[in-house]
Amino acid sequence: MADKIRLGIVGYGNLGKGAVKAIKETPDMELVAVFTRREPESLTLNEPSVKAVHISDAINFKDEIDVMLLCGGSATDLPEQTPHFASMFNTVDSFDTHAKIPEFYQSVDEVASKSNTTAIISVGWDPGLFSINRVMADAIIPNGENYTFWGKGLSQGHSDAVRRVNGVKNGVQYTIPSEKAIEKVRSGENPKLETAEKHRRVCYIVAEEGADTAAIENEIKTMPNYFADYETEVNFITDEELQRDHSKAPHGGFVIRGGNTGDNKQIYEFSLKLDSNPEFTASVLVAYARAAHRLSQEKQYGAKTVYDVAPAYISPRSQEDLRRDYL
Amino acid sequence: MADKIRLGIVGYGNLGKGAVKAIKETPDMELVAVFTRREPESLTLNEPSVKAVHISDAINFKDEIDVMLLCGGSATDLPEQTPHFASMFNTVDSFDTHAKIPEFYQSVDEVASKSNTTAIISVGWDPGLFSINRVMADAIIPNGENYTFWGKGLSQGHSDAVRRVNGVKNGVQYTIPSEKAIEKVRSGENPKLETAEKHRRVCYIVAEEGADTAAIENEIKTMPNYFADYETEVNFITDEELQRDHSKAPHGGFVIRGGNTGDNKQIYEFSLKLDSNPEFTASVLVAYARAAHRLSQEKQYGAKTVYDVAPAYISPRSQEDLRRDYL
Repeated sequence: MADKIRLGIVGYGNLGKGAVKAIKETPDMELVAVFTRREPESLTLNEPSVKAVHISDAINFKDEIDVMLLCGGSATDLPEQTPHFASMFNTVDSFDTHAKIPEFYQSVDEVASKSNTTAIISVGWDPGLFSINRVMADAIIPNGENYTFWGKGLSQGHSDAVRRVNGVKNGVQYTIPSEKAIEKVRSGENPKLETAEKHRRVCYIVAEEGADTAAIENEIKTMPNYFADYETEVNFITDEELQRDHSKAPHGGFVIRGGNTGDNKQIYEFSLKLDSNPEFTASVLVAYARAAHRLSQEKQYGAKTVYDVAPAYISPRSQEDLRRDYL
Repeated sequence: MADKIRLGIVGYGNLGKGAVKAIKETPDMELVAVFTRREPESLTLNEPSVKAVHISDAINFKDEIDVMLLCGGSATDLPEQTPHFASMFNTVDSFDTHAKIPEFYQSVDEVASKSNTTAIISVGWDPGLFSINRVMADAIIPNGENYTFWGKGLSQGHSDAVRRVNGVKNGVQYTIPSEKAIEKVRSGENPKLETAEKHRRVCYIVAEEGADTAAIENEIKTMPNYFADYETEVNFITDEELQRDHSKAPHGGFVIRGGNTGDNKQIYEFSLKLDSNPEFTASVLVAYARAAHRLSQEKQYGAKTVYDVAPAYISPRSQEDLRRDYL
């Protein structure tokens, strides 16, 4: 067997923790170290064998790491970290601010091309696997329409919003795709659908003692942007119920294209149902680290997206095995 | 806009006819000619502008065609035609005899590598899109199990079998995936399932006048290999009903992987619901012709499969557009 692919992880939040787990499942890769801005000694690592190193020492690992998994956030971490690390390492990140991807791509491509590194950006499931399916469905059925639905999923932004409401002690919000809208799309009628028709919102709220639950419900349901346009359901539960039933981070969704060839309807659908969003996203990053390593060995340097990566590059299996057992 | 990609079609059965329609939907490609073993004048072309040419004259089109779509059958046509045409043209075919793919790949790769052509083999939905999803799901969720379900779909082989039964004037057979089995797989319990548990079979039969329908039903249900192991339903209908309700060739299916990251279940699913199997398959071939042309321009010669083709290669859109609008 060839040498293992040596990985580093930058950032030890939920995504970084998921990456540690995902690497353990891959016999062809190994984790060299987790890099953190905190005091390395302060990290409680879920794997005792993993080494924690301060992020400023990453440069000393240039020859010991083949691909760096950048597990920071898109708002402030990655716009700074991806160009920085791409100057030294092959990288994979999950930059997911859709509107800023072109500018992010430019800034990373410049550094990676100059530094002879391969940087695969915006990897995960959306952007990521969903993006691949939107493009492939569009290429195969030109005469049609793409639909993306998200959920059932815990939305961090909306959960933060309900927790800011007066009288709310704690709470979570789930985005749920409308079954009716999905059925319409699956039937091939290519309906015109606003985002608000495609999803509904369900909140589970722990109220403070003595709080006016009717007022809370009203404030949530009429909150502009977040809830006012949506069918919203508000449920009051206890602290214990919240801990017991709502402490995971499930997510998922659907990409559906309905289209026609001649007079015939053709429906293309991709979906994910994830009990842990960060662990799944991390697993996608790890698979694409394999691709980053291989592309770099082929001197295919610069910024790449999932659109530039052929399926064989993310698989641990040989081309012969793939053709014989999976085609 | 760049010059259009110039395509030829070899074979004018259902797949070739679907390819003519599919090319019409793509603004970046054009059809040069359909090549046939029959007398070219005898073909009734669904597009009057299309030129029919005898297959033996294809060599004269070497400089006029960028990619040849090979639309013959896998049993006898393609094992002979793909190596033959790959010596002169870039090709895309839908060779689908799973067990013989490694040997087919070898024979095509030898010719294409020597002739500096690009030959993408076994394109379509299974093998093809389903294969891609089996491999990507396996790479992303190493700890899990792949399941493929086929249908609802008209099965040519099983329809032929029921038509051979004594007293049967005409008939069709649909393969239908078991909802119960799919639900089990979607729940993430990774059940052990035999092919017979995954599918049931539904027949629509026109009996000859005076035929013993009970005997027909019994003979079908007990037919070894084809039906005996399956839950089979036999319906008797009239000639008119058969023409009206069962003259299309629908198909489709599901690839589902259920797996785990740590203690969390993750379900990955891809599905197609096709009103016309040959038209959809042809649309996949046409999209991959774009890839064959581009790979050939990059001098990536030899036999390829869908595993070797990055999503951007099958899309008519520019990399900038893909990153901005689809990622």
